[in-house]
Amino acid sequence: MHQLKLYQYSYHPVPFDQQLSDLKAIDFLPGRFDTMKINKVFAVFINKLFPEQHSTSALLETMDRLLVNEHTTLKALYETEHFTLLTTDFYNLALQLLGFEIDVDFKLAQGGEFLSNLGLPLLKTPELLTTKAQLVTAFYYLLCLRTKNGQNYLDVLANRGFFNQFFKSRTPQFVLFNGRLQATFDANTTIREIVYVQSDLDTDEDGQYDLLETTIFRPKATAYNLKVPALYTANPYFKGTNDMTAALHDVNINLAVKPATEPTITSALPPVLQIDQPVTLKTPAVKSETETAEITSTEDNIYSLNDYFLARGLATVYAGGIGTRHSDGIRTSGSPAETLSTTAIIEWLHGDRLAFTNKTDHIAIKAWWCNGNVAMTGKSYLGTMATAAATTGVPGLKAIISESAISSWYDYYRDHGLVVAPEDCQGEDCDVLAIDTFSRLKDAADYQRIKPVFDKTLLALTKGQDRNSGNYNDFWAIRNYRTNVKNIKCAVLLVHGLNDWNVKLRNPEKLWRTLREADIPAKMFLHQGQHVYMNNIRSIDFNDMVNLWLTDKLLGFPNHSDTILPKVLIQDNAQPETWHHYQDWCADSDPKRQYYLVGNELTTQPKNSSIQTYVDDGAATFLKGDRDEHAWTRAIMADHSTYATNRLQYKSQPLDHELYIDGNPILTVQIASSTDHGLLSAMLVDYGQAKRLLANPSIIERTGLKLGYNWQSEDLKEFQLTPKTSAYKLITKGHINLQNRASLRFNQTVTPDHFYTVHFELQPTHYHLLKNHQIGLILYSTDMGMTLRSSEVIHYQIDLADCRLEIPYRR
Amino acid sequence: MHQLKLYQYSYHPVPFDQQLSDLKAIDFLPGRFDTMKINKVFAVFINKLFPEQHSTSALLETMDRLLVNEHTTLKALYETEHFTLLTTDFYNLALQLLGFEIDVDFKLAQGGEFLSNLGLPLLKTPELLTTKAQLVTAFYYLLCLRTKNGQNYLDVLANRGFFNQFFKSRTPQFVLFNGRLQATFDANTTIREIVYVQSDLDTDEDGQYDLLETTIFRPKATAYNLKVPALYTANPYFKGTNDMTAALHDVNINLAVKPATEPTITSALPPVLQIDQPVTLKTPAVKSETETAEITSTEDNIYSLNDYFLARGLATVYAGGIGTRHSDGIRTSGSPAETLSTTAIIEWLHGDRLAFTNKTDHIAIKAWWCNGNVAMTGKSYLGTMATAAATTGVPGLKAIISESAISSWYDYYRDHGLVVAPEDCQGEDCDVLAIDTFSRLKDAADYQRIKPVFDKTLLALTKGQDRNSGNYNDFWAIRNYRTNVKNIKCAVLLVHGLNDWNVKLRNPEKLWRTLREADIPAKMFLHQGQHVYMNNIRSIDFNDMVNLWLTDKLLGFPNHSDTILPKVLIQDNAQPETWHHYQDWCADSDPKRQYYLVGNELTTQPKNSSIQTYVDDGAATFLKGDRDEHAWTRAIMADHSTYATNRLQYKSQPLDHELYIDGNPILTVQIASSTDHGLLSAMLVDYGQAKRLLANPSIIERTGLKLGYNWQSEDLKEFQLTPKTSAYKLITKGHINLQNRASLRFNQTVTPDHFYTVHFELQPTHYHLLKNHQIGLILYSTDMGMTLRSSEVIHYQIDLADCRLEIPYRR
Repeated sequence: MHQLKLYQYSYHPVPFDQQLSDLKAIDFLPGRFDTMKINKVFAVFINKLFPEQHSTSALLETMDRLLVNEHTTLKALYETEHFTLLTTDFYNLALQLLGFEIDVDFKLAQGGEFLSNLGLPLLKTPELLTTKAQLVTAFYYLLCLRTKNGQNYLDVLANRGFFNQFFKSRTPQFVLFNGRLQATFDANTTIREIVYVQSDLDTDEDGQYDLLETTIFRPKATAYNLKVPALYTANPYFKGTNDMTAALHDVNINLAVKPATEPTITSALPPVLQIDQPVTLKTPAVKSETETAEITSTEDNIYSLNDYFLARGLATVYAGGIGTRHSDGIRTSGSPAETLSTTAIIEWLHGDRLAFTNKTDHIAIKAWWCNGNVAMTGKSYLGTMATAAATTGVPGLKAIISESAISSWYDYYRDHGLVVAPEDCQGEDCDVLAIDTFSRLKDAADYQRIKPVFDKTLLALTKGQDRNSGNYNDFWAIRNYRTNVKNIKCAVLLVHGLNDWNVKLRNPEKLWRTLREADIPAKMFLHQGQHVYMNNIRSIDFNDMVNLWLTDKLLGFPNHSDTILPKVLIQDNAQPETWHHYQDWCADSDPKRQYYLVGNELTTQPKNSSIQTYVDDGAATFLKGDRDEHAWTRAIMADHSTYATNRLQYKSQPLDHELYIDGNPILTVQIASSTDHGLLSAMLVDYGQAKRLLANPSIIERTGLKLGYNWQSEDLKEFQLTPKTSAYKLITKGHINLQNRASLRFNQTVTPDHFYTVHFELQPTHYHLLKNHQIGLILYSTDMGMTLRSSEVIHYQIDLADCRLEIPYRR
Repeated sequence: MHQLKLYQYSYHPVPFDQQLSDLKAIDFLPGRFDTMKINKVFAVFINKLFPEQHSTSALLETMDRLLVNEHTTLKALYETEHFTLLTTDFYNLALQLLGFEIDVDFKLAQGGEFLSNLGLPLLKTPELLTTKAQLVTAFYYLLCLRTKNGQNYLDVLANRGFFNQFFKSRTPQFVLFNGRLQATFDANTTIREIVYVQSDLDTDEDGQYDLLETTIFRPKATAYNLKVPALYTANPYFKGTNDMTAALHDVNINLAVKPATEPTITSALPPVLQIDQPVTLKTPAVKSETETAEITSTEDNIYSLNDYFLARGLATVYAGGIGTRHSDGIRTSGSPAETLSTTAIIEWLHGDRLAFTNKTDHIAIKAWWCNGNVAMTGKSYLGTMATAAATTGVPGLKAIISESAISSWYDYYRDHGLVVAPEDCQGEDCDVLAIDTFSRLKDAADYQRIKPVFDKTLLALTKGQDRNSGNYNDFWAIRNYRTNVKNIKCAVLLVHGLNDWNVKLRNPEKLWRTLREADIPAKMFLHQGQHVYMNNIRSIDFNDMVNLWLTDKLLGFPNHSDTILPKVLIQDNAQPETWHHYQDWCADSDPKRQYYLVGNELTTQPKNSSIQTYVDDGAATFLKGDRDEHAWTRAIMADHSTYATNRLQYKSQPLDHELYIDGNPILTVQIASSTDHGLLSAMLVDYGQAKRLLANPSIIERTGLKLGYNWQSEDLKEFQLTPKTSAYKLITKGHINLQNRASLRFNQTVTPDHFYTVHFELQPTHYHLLKNHQIGLILYSTDMGMTLRSSEVIHYQIDLADCRLEIPYRR
């Protein structure tokens, strides 16, 4: 039987008084609690757990199906004159209520043991629950536990109607339990409206401030005077995307030879900057003001975490930003203007900026329903916008949950002086992304008018990004949010997948280091996924943690979320459903292992060693074949490989005990190219037969995660092991242009057959290497899935004597 | 550019008067239509298309984004004093409204041509729309068309709020347009309740009639006196399933030698029948009657077709049947008792049977909100229950949409005297399925009480199904719904996937033939999927067709659905998004091609030929390996195969023109076994490099198919071609026990090395074989994914001189 694990970091024990007031807040505690006998209190509590049953008979029938022990049904216990409740009986009952089955999941006598193996926190109880206080604590604890599908039991009760009496309140309030917001709002009556926020930009050069379409989903409770915080997701994809296939750059070209440049040369700011600045225009007069929007939104929700909070009383807000459909402006992929168009929405929510009901009439509308506190959510480009906004220090922004996000666009499309694509995105770049997200193109008449400005902007983007050099320049510098980290005033939660080769790990890592250096508190959650959300993973209480955290940040409720929640949470790659709670990631103080390259080995002691060679001519084979980038990636790591001559392979001795790699492996290589340019790529590999976690979580139950009563749902997922073992897995990799061995901005020459020292960081990671596995290193050049695929045949020599691999690990 | 195809069988042209009254019914036609000028009518029509815009400015801004031609926006046309509308301009506008993009999907000048290439019906219009009548027809037609995502445009408008004014009506009515029910009901206010229907059974032998839990979702309009039909899905999985892994039968055993039996012997009815009959018990007195249920349902909906109809005013009803959680009784996998427990719900809906609000108080509750008309839906076991119910002729049942359904349980778990598992279900059988669906097991106290009766029933099932012989017997005979086809009084729509190897095609085929013989009208839709629903496939208007059909069958609206909808609809396997409308499938009059086996060829002329041999010893290799049944299936068909000695392979000459196989290929083989028993399996194979449709449709847009305003959605899907070509694909296959060469019920002896004629039908199909492809035949014995996997080594001889393959095809 598979031993389920259910981590629960959001739960925290509270004093008895708090238990009582929490239970009172959710209307669980009977009014005459003080004078009632224990069996009556038990009866009232049990009643609350079956919100579907509206008659005594129906309730008793339900209780008659549950066993508290081998000889007693819940009904018998409920009806007995001689009420006694053993702790083990309570565990049996609790587990059934949580969805576990007797003799399938647990044995009647072993409820407590089973519960503790789940990973859930355990109640300290006496053998017999004899007092009302003990009963209160036991039921409080039960309401906090997670069910078999990973959802909080009180949330499950809410999904079954527990809170429906709160839906119709004409004096709505937020309801908290164990420090978290409860689902006391009817999400199906959500008010859905659209307004146009006026920015300080005129990126489409029409002499008018860019108006930004903003979509608001707010609880009906706001119509009854409840002021609510807003969860805001800046989403350039919100109004659709365009087919960018035709715009993709050709990557089957040779690497350019770059002229040597002096560190003293400062390149001029590329022209794209000129349309990126706030402008001062004549402000149109506000004709009138209203509290009523005049456009209804029928857009979809886009992130189930947001929908979860809609049922808990937060508003959710979406905006595509400049250049997206129905908004003004032009897309400029990561530019400061884009950031300003993102923060404009927050300024409106905070009461600091104008918005209009339409683009014509100058009728102003305020976010009068908002309490002025905003948190941002979203993954990838969406999370990137959250990071961008945070680095402006915009008032009103209290927290960001930035998932799989870019922290510097150079680290998205480039690596050490090379064009390096995100996985499965060969040929994409800032200009292509601008086409992708310029959804104004979908409205033919609108596009007809804006096309000249868009075409001009696109040219500037193409020029600024400078694929020819691959160097860091001012175009990239203004797209590096990390330079503004000091401005951050909000709480920061970064979430990233350790197998994300779209937004590579350098993005969260460098941001994390910058935050640490600036002494800005932040949290980091790292899961084993690729480029995916983690809020529907059964083994971890992500939604509950975010709930606890946002209840603190957006409603100011002192629930100690910062200390209760892990600072760094990392999912183990070798053990399913296993999460580690750490104090840091990529800590500078981590110890390091030094490896040397000898023969085909990674050794811990240097030895006399020689020169080895490989040839970089695999592109021809690759392009003649089926061009499967993933198959190539597997092949270049395999012991017996079609591409064996295109690489050098080194392996350590089998590890005599397990090892947790943590941080950036650093590689030093003495390398010579047969021509006047070249590149070096390196992969760190885990060699050893093992079942490994699939890089995307599997659906355990379709729509298994309910987000509220009669409301949206999400598929319940978990990271599962592959059914078969495999011989190796990529740990991390990295790339460098030999001309950029000293700098990202400036080029050095490469003399053919001359040896140079190349010293660079691979992408950071956290990786659990099992005992008896071997650490592998692959040195190669062209990376079919990421770099340019040159048709040149270049021979590389490696002088092993001066090569080193440094692996940081967690003690 | 991929040429999208959107079939639209549900649309039918209606006379102008009908157009007017349809438009009036949906409140599209202005009240003063007769006296208005054409430009005002146009303005009113356009207004209706933007239900989100609640102000003139917002509306004009929206119109200003649409082009009617290169020089004119919709706004300009709307505002002009000199209104003229070219048909081509109308097409341009229509296509944009339907979600197509100018210069991405179509060119401004070629709207009409693009529209006709889509596969949509075309309006016959003059070059210029000059009269109000022409305008009415043009907009009527527009409202009937399908959008880029395949959904009906009026449905899309409904999803955007078009019908919201109908939601609050206190005199609710059904609204029809082009013969179909419209989404004028607020599905979010659905009333969800549970009652207990009293059956005539006592399958759990407690001396009381089995009460069957029944879940009802009915529109709130029923509370305002609207009587509605019910869509009923009998779903044994509704309350969950149990892990049946431990109960699976071992299939790695030898095929039994069966004693020869005489056709005169009639086997006794197995004991399982004794608990399957209606009983007469003392009926408890009804204490009182109510219209109000006392249990709320918080169950999920399970089939998006049902949810689609909830927004269109139908109630949806779910019941698990005997032995499922919260119901009484015992599971007996396909038995007559199960059928009676299925029809009991219909009898209650039709007013012919008692139900109670709970199991204790004898408070009766009627389906007072139901108009007495019921249709059944569902796939697999669910669809099977629909077929079962139809064959009883139960009053009230007006239509079944039976998808991927079993028509005889022998044809699910057996084939020609062999145990033959559904794909991916090795070791499953009727007894295992009873464990799987016996969800009363989930309630520990309930299970404790019922366990003895369940254990006894299980023993009877195991005995009755008789895996040892694999023969047809009375156990199977009472599980053959086809014997009762003559009772059918309802309309029948059968839907099945041509790649379904779970419920094999013999099930719909034999039912289809029986219906045809009995002169019972029916329709058959065959898609290219495995065991999946087809209601979210973009290229075909399945939901609309079912809507048209049920509007006829359940509301009695004379929309000619029987003649408008195709009798037989078959998706092409070689051309994506291509559907054929036929008059029949497996027609007896279809011509047949005769093939002979010569050398390794299938020839059209017999020649002198010899004896060939193969050995059936692949199980050892298979079981030592990774036991991948799908990999084995591919391997046994491959030209170069690990299992080459386990089969004989024959191929025809490349076809000189394409061929549509239709029906059951029939195989005649002269075969000798080296021992006193044996089996023959055969695969028909399409050899020829081609991209082939994936057997499961791919998601085109997650939640892309909205089922109503602010209501559930479904993923939009389409069958797509594999990215790479493959050399072959299975067309169909079949299996036979050599001892059952004369009969399914009776055994003949097999003398070692003696030749016998085996003559049997492979599973039926419909298959488009392309020109230059070759028809292949594989003869073998053990089928790793379906038959027992014997460790015996048996040598088989085939006398080619007397072998024939007969392939029916469509002229």
